[in-house]
Amino acid sequence: MTVTARRVILKSRPVGAPKPGDFALVEAPVPTVGDGEILTRTIYLSLDPYMRGRISGVKSYAKGVDPGDLMVGGTVGEVVESKHPVFKAGDIVQGYDGWQTHAVSKGAGVRKLDPAQAPISTALGVLGMPGMTAYVGLLDIGRPKAGDTVVVSAASGAVGAVVGQLAKIKGCRAVGIAGAKDKCDYVVSELGFDACVNYKTDDLGAALRAACPNGIDVYFENVGGDITEAVLQLVNPFARIPLCGLISQYNATGAVSGPSWRVLLTNRVLVQGFIVSDHLDRMPAFLADVGAWVREGRIRFREDIVDGLERAPDAFIGLLQGKNFGKMLVRVGEDRTRR
Amino acid sequence: MTVTARRVILKSRPVGAPKPGDFALVEAPVPTVGDGEILTRTIYLSLDPYMRGRISGVKSYAKGVDPGDLMVGGTVGEVVESKHPVFKAGDIVQGYDGWQTHAVSKGAGVRKLDPAQAPISTALGVLGMPGMTAYVGLLDIGRPKAGDTVVVSAASGAVGAVVGQLAKIKGCRAVGIAGAKDKCDYVVSELGFDACVNYKTDDLGAALRAACPNGIDVYFENVGGDITEAVLQLVNPFARIPLCGLISQYNATGAVSGPSWRVLLTNRVLVQGFIVSDHLDRMPAFLADVGAWVREGRIRFREDIVDGLERAPDAFIGLLQGKNFGKMLVRVGEDRTRR
Repeated sequence: MTVTARRVILKSRPVGAPKPGDFALVEAPVPTVGDGEILTRTIYLSLDPYMRGRISGVKSYAKGVDPGDLMVGGTVGEVVESKHPVFKAGDIVQGYDGWQTHAVSKGAGVRKLDPAQAPISTALGVLGMPGMTAYVGLLDIGRPKAGDTVVVSAASGAVGAVVGQLAKIKGCRAVGIAGAKDKCDYVVSELGFDACVNYKTDDLGAALRAACPNGIDVYFENVGGDITEAVLQLVNPFARIPLCGLISQYNATGAVSGPSWRVLLTNRVLVQGFIVSDHLDRMPAFLADVGAWVREGRIRFREDIVDGLERAPDAFIGLLQGKNFGKMLVRVGEDRTRR
Repeated sequence: MTVTARRVILKSRPVGAPKPGDFALVEAPVPTVGDGEILTRTIYLSLDPYMRGRISGVKSYAKGVDPGDLMVGGTVGEVVESKHPVFKAGDIVQGYDGWQTHAVSKGAGVRKLDPAQAPISTALGVLGMPGMTAYVGLLDIGRPKAGDTVVVSAASGAVGAVVGQLAKIKGCRAVGIAGAKDKCDYVVSELGFDACVNYKTDDLGAALRAACPNGIDVYFENVGGDITEAVLQLVNPFARIPLCGLISQYNATGAVSGPSWRVLLTNRVLVQGFIVSDHLDRMPAFLADVGAWVREGRIRFREDIVDGLERAPDAFIGLLQGKNFGKMLVRVGEDRTRR
């Protein structure tokens, strides 16, 4: 049987904000499955801000996507056919198959999921790379102490939501920054943050000061720009800034500047850029801790799911504009594990 | 006997670069020495870039100097009279008596020096706060490994010169950045740096690239501005940036921006602001290590000494412009320990 896959490729490098025309939906026959390989049908595709960097043509920590290439991305799928010793047909797996309906792979970096443990989509969110990014960044780099004030930008996003809830578990004051009233309401009412600042309507500096009466000890950085400047006005001595993302700059076309380092010097602040894939040794601890907290209801999550691979480009463009609300996923194929 | 001290006070807050008229030389009788106090005559006064921050009126890590106040600073002096159990007349001590010829103090933070061990002026330089700043910043924050490339700005200065020599001792490639040919020649020929870039005449980016063929693993930051931007073009993954000073910005009158954090993210760079006085627990190790290396001739030093307290304002103004060559000192009184 020849399977035809639908795939989204990068058609042209975006200049500034990506446009739908920068992507193309194409069809291609799926290669036959060779020895040691598996064929997987994609169920969920994860959309994440880091993908903007991959298509930028700028040298970075990972190989980029060139025009004509398949778009990269984390996926959850079902093994349809296996000539691999570890996997069998019917297995649900998390891998990196990219923006396509079917993929043949050698199983490198693929892990089996147990649908009885947690919804399989969470392997791309709260129990996947975004959740582990929050875990490593906050706990290992931010090193929060009970009583500290932890601020996180993009607070309702896949990473930010976990950061704030981890901060609460560690006895900290958790303050979010988000770009909509419903997002702020959500992180306070549903996730238990102590406060949230709406940077689009509030006087950012004043609202942040009111939300952080004891200053800021940890700032989990997802966005950059004016928000960072406002945070730096309030950092306490020896503050830690895990630098996870700079989404406000990803579509920039010209040179971007940053904050003066003066405040980092006088307050002896730590800024540490990090990429979760450098910290895979922390995966077992992350899955044990956060898996338990999710099952206990101490860490909650929200997903923003669109249906159909063809909608991935629009969803990705919206993600970069903050239009999603919760972990952004594309349901590429039927999820038969959901009851 | 009433002793009259000459003192330099801050007359007015400088706007931009300090001017001689921002300071005033005044005379005042020295208070009589009370129980538990010592009277010291100043021999050397240390001039350091941090003093610009102290007179700026901006809240920082230490109390500032207000108009009318004595200028602060580290000093080496001779105890003239003592009613203190630890010190006796004739002792040579390092303290923080500020810009004055005589001072009465309670001895807090004052340490005795042994003129037989090293020239007493070194207690303000290579074996004092600047040397320890280099030691803590490079070794504890920069964590250089053999084979790393270590770049230091203000390379011929009191801190930078020690940074590069420590880097060589640790088996690294040491690259300086300085603002004059004689300074560059000095750090290479006299101090043993592998290379030095003259930022005033060289094409900074190209010269730095040529000097750092394997990229940059540690950047010891003393200056900020264009030099930092050039360094960040060359940082390797997991580079460390001990943030010690930003002398290019200290006279700025308006808002100053910094480099984009993007490069810190993609290369997982650490930036850590630090102030040596937070690390006094490292003093014994520093004095043991660097003291030995100085005696063995493995760490060399250079002093730029002007004579007379009345010249301190001009020397300080020049320091901020990079006019000094080596550790900037004012000889306030006779050094009878020099043979």
